[in-house]
Amino acid sequence: MVIKVAVAGPRGKMGREAVGTIIKNEDFLLVGLLDSKKTEATLGDNIPIYTSLTELIEETAPDVLVDLTVPSAVYEHIITALEYGVRPVVGTTGFSEVQLDNIRNLVEEKQVGCIIAPNFSIGAVLMMKFAQIAAKYLPDVEIIELHHDEKVDAPSGTAIKTAQMIQNTREASVQGHPEEEEILKGARGANFDGMRIHSVRLPGLIAHQQVLLGGDGQLLTLRHDSFNRSSFMSGVVISIKEVMNQSKLVYGLEEIIL
Amino acid sequence: MVIKVAVAGPRGKMGREAVGTIIKNEDFLLVGLLDSKKTEATLGDNIPIYTSLTELIEETAPDVLVDLTVPSAVYEHIITALEYGVRPVVGTTGFSEVQLDNIRNLVEEKQVGCIIAPNFSIGAVLMMKFAQIAAKYLPDVEIIELHHDEKVDAPSGTAIKTAQMIQNTREASVQGHPEEEEILKGARGANFDGMRIHSVRLPGLIAHQQVLLGGDGQLLTLRHDSFNRSSFMSGVVISIKEVMNQSKLVYGLEEIIL
Amino acid sequence: MVIKVAVAGPRGKMGREAVGTIIKNEDFLLVGLLDSKKTEATLGDNIPIYTSLTELIEETAPDVLVDLTVPSAVYEHIITALEYGVRPVVGTTGFSEVQLDNIRNLVEEKQVGCIIAPNFSIGAVLMMKFAQIAAKYLPDVEIIELHHDEKVDAPSGTAIKTAQMIQNTREASVQGHPEEEEILKGARGANFDGMRIHSVRLPGLIAHQQVLLGGDGQLLTLRHDSFNRSSFMSGVVISIKEVMNQSKLVYGLEEIIL
Amino acid sequence: MVIKVAVAGPRGKMGREAVGTIIKNEDFLLVGLLDSKKTEATLGDNIPIYTSLTELIEETAPDVLVDLTVPSAVYEHIITALEYGVRPVVGTTGFSEVQLDNIRNLVEEKQVGCIIAPNFSIGAVLMMKFAQIAAKYLPDVEIIELHHDEKVDAPSGTAIKTAQMIQNTREASVQGHPEEEEILKGARGANFDGMRIHSVRLPGLIAHQQVLLGGDGQLLTLRHDSFNRSSFMSGVVISIKEVMNQSKLVYGLEEIIL
Repeated sequence: MVIKVAVAGPRGKMGREAVGTIIKNEDFLLVGLLDSKKTEATLGDNIPIYTSLTELIEETAPDVLVDLTVPSAVYEHIITALEYGVRPVVGTTGFSEVQLDNIRNLVEEKQVGCIIAPNFSIGAVLMMKFAQIAAKYLPDVEIIELHHDEKVDAPSGTAIKTAQMIQNTREASVQGHPEEEEILKGARGANFDGMRIHSVRLPGLIAHQQVLLGGDGQLLTLRHDSFNRSSFMSGVVISIKEVMNQSKLVYGLEEIIL
Repeated sequence: MVIKVAVAGPRGKMGREAVGTIIKNEDFLLVGLLDSKKTEATLGDNIPIYTSLTELIEETAPDVLVDLTVPSAVYEHIITALEYGVRPVVGTTGFSEVQLDNIRNLVEEKQVGCIIAPNFSIGAVLMMKFAQIAAKYLPDVEIIELHHDEKVDAPSGTAIKTAQMIQNTREASVQGHPEEEEILKGARGANFDGMRIHSVRLPGLIAHQQVLLGGDGQLLTLRHDSFNRSSFMSGVVISIKEVMNQSKLVYGLEEIIL
Repeated sequence: MVIKVAVAGPRGKMGREAVGTIIKNEDFLLVGLLDSKKTEATLGDNIPIYTSLTELIEETAPDVLVDLTVPSAVYEHIITALEYGVRPVVGTTGFSEVQLDNIRNLVEEKQVGCIIAPNFSIGAVLMMKFAQIAAKYLPDVEIIELHHDEKVDAPSGTAIKTAQMIQNTREASVQGHPEEEEILKGARGANFDGMRIHSVRLPGLIAHQQVLLGGDGQLLTLRHDSFNRSSFMSGVVISIKEVMNQSKLVYGLEEIIL
Repeated sequence: MVIKVAVAGPRGKMGREAVGTIIKNEDFLLVGLLDSKKTEATLGDNIPIYTSLTELIEETAPDVLVDLTVPSAVYEHIITALEYGVRPVVGTTGFSEVQLDNIRNLVEEKQVGCIIAPNFSIGAVLMMKFAQIAAKYLPDVEIIELHHDEKVDAPSGTAIKTAQMIQNTREASVQGHPEEEEILKGARGANFDGMRIHSVRLPGLIAHQQVLLGGDGQLLTLRHDSFNRSSFMSGVVISIKEVMNQSKLVYGLEEIIL
């Protein structure tokens, strides 16, 4: 059965890619777009553009709303969609606890799924989740993340998130030699609950991370390379399909991958 | 609570390492050894050596029997241990279907766990299991395994096992360009249900494998390096602890890692 | 001293990037463009566009001509440039032996440098050259090249070129176990003079190659990742600077990197 | 022609491996051993053991003396060997400037080669030398070295030596974003003349290093894995052969590999 999809925010970088991805996918039918700065009546010949979400829903009856608008608008979109029984798929973060509670309650009342995914890159999510599982058995962990040299902050958000997920699983641990000594300061990287994080910045690089887990006589390496923005699209596709099977709030793709 | 462990086959390469590992581990107490070619009464001062398994069990009352003997002897050991309520942890493969059924029935009757692990390397098992999960989301897969050049057969057993596990998860798939052409024969590697397997053989290498999963704009790489035999010991330790919590037959560490 | 540069073929993909790169580089001054399909008098405010190379040279007196036009035109451009004492930097391949001899003779007569570079990617050239040197000391070699799955032929041209360069250095060698056996056909890859070449094709990948050289207890890995077309520009910049110091024909950047 | 080799210090770890390697190599003939703590007249049936180097040289007439004794003895051995026209191959470091000058003068007077190699691992030396060359063209460099967690100091001596060699080649350079900020202290590693060095310490690891050189749209990675002590033997073999062709003092294998 084809899933009817609407997209809110079709003109941003992510939005344009999402529209293209959904149109090309035979499992989906793009039924409408929500664009507050609408300048045309339709996209191409036949996909109507709306400035009102209720109007869009009432006229096109989507199964799923993919929302790629700015954070300030997303919360109201989610509430409206859920009240109409339309399943939201959202990439925005930064909801308050109260907002998340309201969404969770409405999801349960209406029994329609809702996916909020801070990271749509399925490969990155798999790497993080696998690292979390593996650290139960191989608790000595170091993270190396590598980015282009235009990136200002170190370590990357994904590296910190990975370390937090591992922290939830493994027992606290001191790594390395007890009398370890840095001849050159900083050589052993940043210390996050005993785990070491190293940030490489070089021209040419894009966005890469590897998690190294060492044990007696062995090393397990989990690596993700993100070469361009299209890496997020596979997560959008998976979410649209998966939200149809859900009747609860899913926060983070890591909740649905196992 | 300390787990009382007996080891059958303490003189082989694996056996010697297992004895050393168990003695050093504070969670375990090594209570006895089974050695058909017994030449001493005890190992060290106080660990008695037996030639009869029933005698060993009756006198030392182990919780777990780690069996590293030859395949021909293992089956009888497992049956005997289970009848006494002792939990077997076994690395041997090659049981017949009838034997496995008998073991499974006895395990269920006695309600004591039993772990048979064709591969005790926890890192390798994690790599294989993760590859299986990831292939649901990133179904384009290639495997590169790398071994020393004394290895005769290619691909390795681990590579084939990995491909089989992935085959059980993902839908059949043709990979690569439809008009793909090998200018030099063999360049694209072995074809296993669409997946490609490449075997590298070089002096200096030990035992390594990486699974590459590609998707739009991204690559996920799962790599395991096995540097020496001690890599198997972490799996033995995990199995001894885990078999205490089980009341069924576990075949393969992949069944207990998630 | 600033080097005066002219570019032939400024409208192709490579040409446009080269123009941008040269304009931004403070060591260079872009003095003119050669474009047979000229539609404007100048690029931007002040860089004149010509349809005749002799006119361009006579009016703008460049030190170097970077030629990125189609192969059919390049040979005449090189001859003309050399006769005027202008140093050509060229990325085209496919010259006949007679043409190369004529170019070589004219270069020596005029004592001005000329660089013909089949591959402007300095990183790829370094990888190939280093592999050639290293194989003298570590003669057991395997090559793994990895490309997107739109690539039809395997192995890649760079992999074959690398193997040829190594072949010129090391003595012929049989690699792997003498009784090596492929359980799955093709597992050991393509055989090039004893070296094995493996071609990986996955969506998401761009253009990558690694050369593995094994020896007693060690492995040397040389890897090049090409993430986008801009990787060729560093080779163009190096060539413009280097051609000023040359008074012979350089064929391939590998001739100037040591 | 077979090269006649003597070994000083045949009972240390390196010495024993060297003796085994030389005996197995058909290009070499082991003619005698120098062992100050001599307990047997010969090694095996027929290789005489001496406590005096002059006696060894006069009776066995070696072409090459491989010296793996303690630093305090090596200098005298080198001088004695050179005076007899025997070529020294030495792994010790820590000579004074005066000692090196004396050796250099004697080498030139006698016109026989002498090789002093602080690092006999040919793969590591190739990695360092290649990094030095490549940094001329790709001057943005980061070094990641990975060792077992029994190692106390960070970074490793090889990482520092690599950075020093690169420093001699490339112009001083500030890397990374000018406003770069460490959210977690140490994330960007140690700063060596602008290059960043990262030290990973995990159980299971042995001794590994990779040098990453980034440029527009590309990355060049040079990696060396040292899996065990035998990795030093290829350097010993190469040195014995090479010292026969030399008539000067070679300090470091990097001087003879190009």
